[in-house]
Amino acid sequence: MTQQDPRIHVLTTGGTIDKLYFDALSEYQIGESILARLLEIARVKLPVEIEEVTRKDSLELTADDRALIAARVAASPAERIVITHGTDTMTDTAAALAGISGKTIVLVGALAPARFSESDATFNLGMAFATAQIAPPGVYITMNGTVFRADQVVKDRAKGAFVAR
Amino acid sequence: MTQQDPRIHVLTTGGTIDKLYFDALSEYQIGESILARLLEIARVKLPVEIEEVTRKDSLELTADDRALIAARVAASPAERIVITHGTDTMTDTAAALAGISGKTIVLVGALAPARFSESDATFNLGMAFATAQIAPPGVYITMNGTVFRADQVVKDRAKGAFVAR
Amino acid sequence: MTQQDPRIHVLTTGGTIDKLYFDALSEYQIGESILARLLEIARVKLPVEIEEVTRKDSLELTADDRALIAARVAASPAERIVITHGTDTMTDTAAALAGISGKTIVLVGALAPARFSESDATFNLGMAFATAQIAPPGVYITMNGTVFRADQVVKDRAKGAFVAR
Amino acid sequence: MTQQDPRIHVLTTGGTIDKLYFDALSEYQIGESILARLLEIARVKLPVEIEEVTRKDSLELTADDRALIAARVAASPAERIVITHGTDTMTDTAAALAGISGKTIVLVGALAPARFSESDATFNLGMAFATAQIAPPGVYITMNGTVFRADQVVKDRAKGAFVAR
Repeated sequence: MTQQDPRIHVLTTGGTIDKLYFDALSEYQIGESILARLLEIARVKLPVEIEEVTRKDSLELTADDRALIAARVAASPAERIVITHGTDTMTDTAAALAGISGKTIVLVGALAPARFSESDATFNLGMAFATAQIAPPGVYITMNGTVFRADQVVKDRAKGAFVAR
Repeated sequence: MTQQDPRIHVLTTGGTIDKLYFDALSEYQIGESILARLLEIARVKLPVEIEEVTRKDSLELTADDRALIAARVAASPAERIVITHGTDTMTDTAAALAGISGKTIVLVGALAPARFSESDATFNLGMAFATAQIAPPGVYITMNGTVFRADQVVKDRAKGAFVAR
Repeated sequence: MTQQDPRIHVLTTGGTIDKLYFDALSEYQIGESILARLLEIARVKLPVEIEEVTRKDSLELTADDRALIAARVAASPAERIVITHGTDTMTDTAAALAGISGKTIVLVGALAPARFSESDATFNLGMAFATAQIAPPGVYITMNGTVFRADQVVKDRAKGAFVAR
Repeated sequence: MTQQDPRIHVLTTGGTIDKLYFDALSEYQIGESILARLLEIARVKLPVEIEEVTRKDSLELTADDRALIAARVAASPAERIVITHGTDTMTDTAAALAGISGKTIVLVGALAPARFSESDATFNLGMAFATAQIAPPGVYITMNGTVFRADQVVKDRAKGAFVAR
């Protein structure tokens, strides 16, 4: 609320949030990001730029991919960064971003694809947008109704939820 | 993130966010709050208490209603308060809450009913939950993708959006 | 299945099925028909032509409106006609269509707007499309999971459902 | 419309229509059938009995499974049968049902899971219910907006659609 520059830079990397279902293959794949559509439905009026960096399940992200994501964040003119990301290695990518100063960076994903009628994607994105606007610089994860510092959270696969550690 | 008490107290007052459509009357009415269902879909794991205070279009809220809402907020043991509210007089209720100290209070609503397949309700609620967790004490409004200080925003009915003033 | 001409001519007249919600007015209005979008989601591959005749709540339809609807049906080159219509006077319009021979005409609407995430609109439309294809010439109403002959059904407003009479 | 017994017996066998997404496994699986919920949303008032026969992708259905499905259909006291089924081998199961006389049997599925906000499931089910009520005894498939005789249709995987043959 006190930042000079209101724009939010959204980087998409893939993950469950953008999964489609292809009947011809009887499997899901990660599709073109549905982010722009979700922000339109949410009637977001802030200036937002959406950029695709990768389109991968987060288990397939490599060290090079994480370096690319970090480079894009560092190079962004925006101070507020939202990154959509698969949930399984979200904390690894967060660690790769920890050295970037002066930016509020929020990683966010979904436990059910955004294209499902019942998904956590939109709520999580709302948390990410608010956090990007008002949290001090640092790296955050917004999942399961909670704003976590990225270095204080783990995904508990058995529970299907992010929990503080 | 630094607060001792993670619980969020949600007060519902009515408004578009909870509107139903009654065919027998061919009109919209405000129904039982859909909040609990939305938080379940969002897989919110924080402790949340939901309490109905009123069930009104915000144009019908009286000074007594606002006094009641303020009394409930002041009496709440929680430090994080989310209030769902009709959008037309949201800033009036915010003004009635301005004197309450030590709590982060977020008013939130929707421009389309949450029961619509395309509504801003869930995204707005996500913003409200994040703001309640991380903003300093004060009164906020989270609409149109933006976290506003409640005394620095107006609803522009012609635009159908909240804008900074 | 035995008809030579597979095309379906859809006439839209308004009604709850196409109701929008306008926050600026805190009321609903009948919007541009959502039919084409629903048929796209349903992956309908038959040739379909959609034509707007009126855009009214069915309680506001006049004798002239019904004459216009009947004229459009009679003039249509298609043998399979689907008419989307408000539910309150659906049987009146059906009566005005009773004299048209050689066509299978199905009136259909919804008890909740199609834009709601939980609406009967899509199921009802599916029934209408099947009935238009396979029922003998005549006038039908497809609501509440049932294919009714139009002269053997009434809307029971208290029950919020169509029932045989 | 002329049948004495209005009840519809729904047999569920699995398929895309009932697919869930399990984040813990990063894959889709077939869940408990969502049929009852879809019929509730559609405000179906006919007597309906829902019975699970199998819960499989249709590529995994065996000859024994098809014999079981046929036995359940033959033993059903209902004259109107709807079978939800994966799309890949729907015509094979239809062939196994061809010898059953005196019943109107409709196979139906979806090309996108019913739990997606944009799925053909509900429209297809509406077609199936109408067809079960008004088509003469025989075996039918209702997909892609069309009522097919089951022996006159194939799934074109490249097109992702059912087409007449």
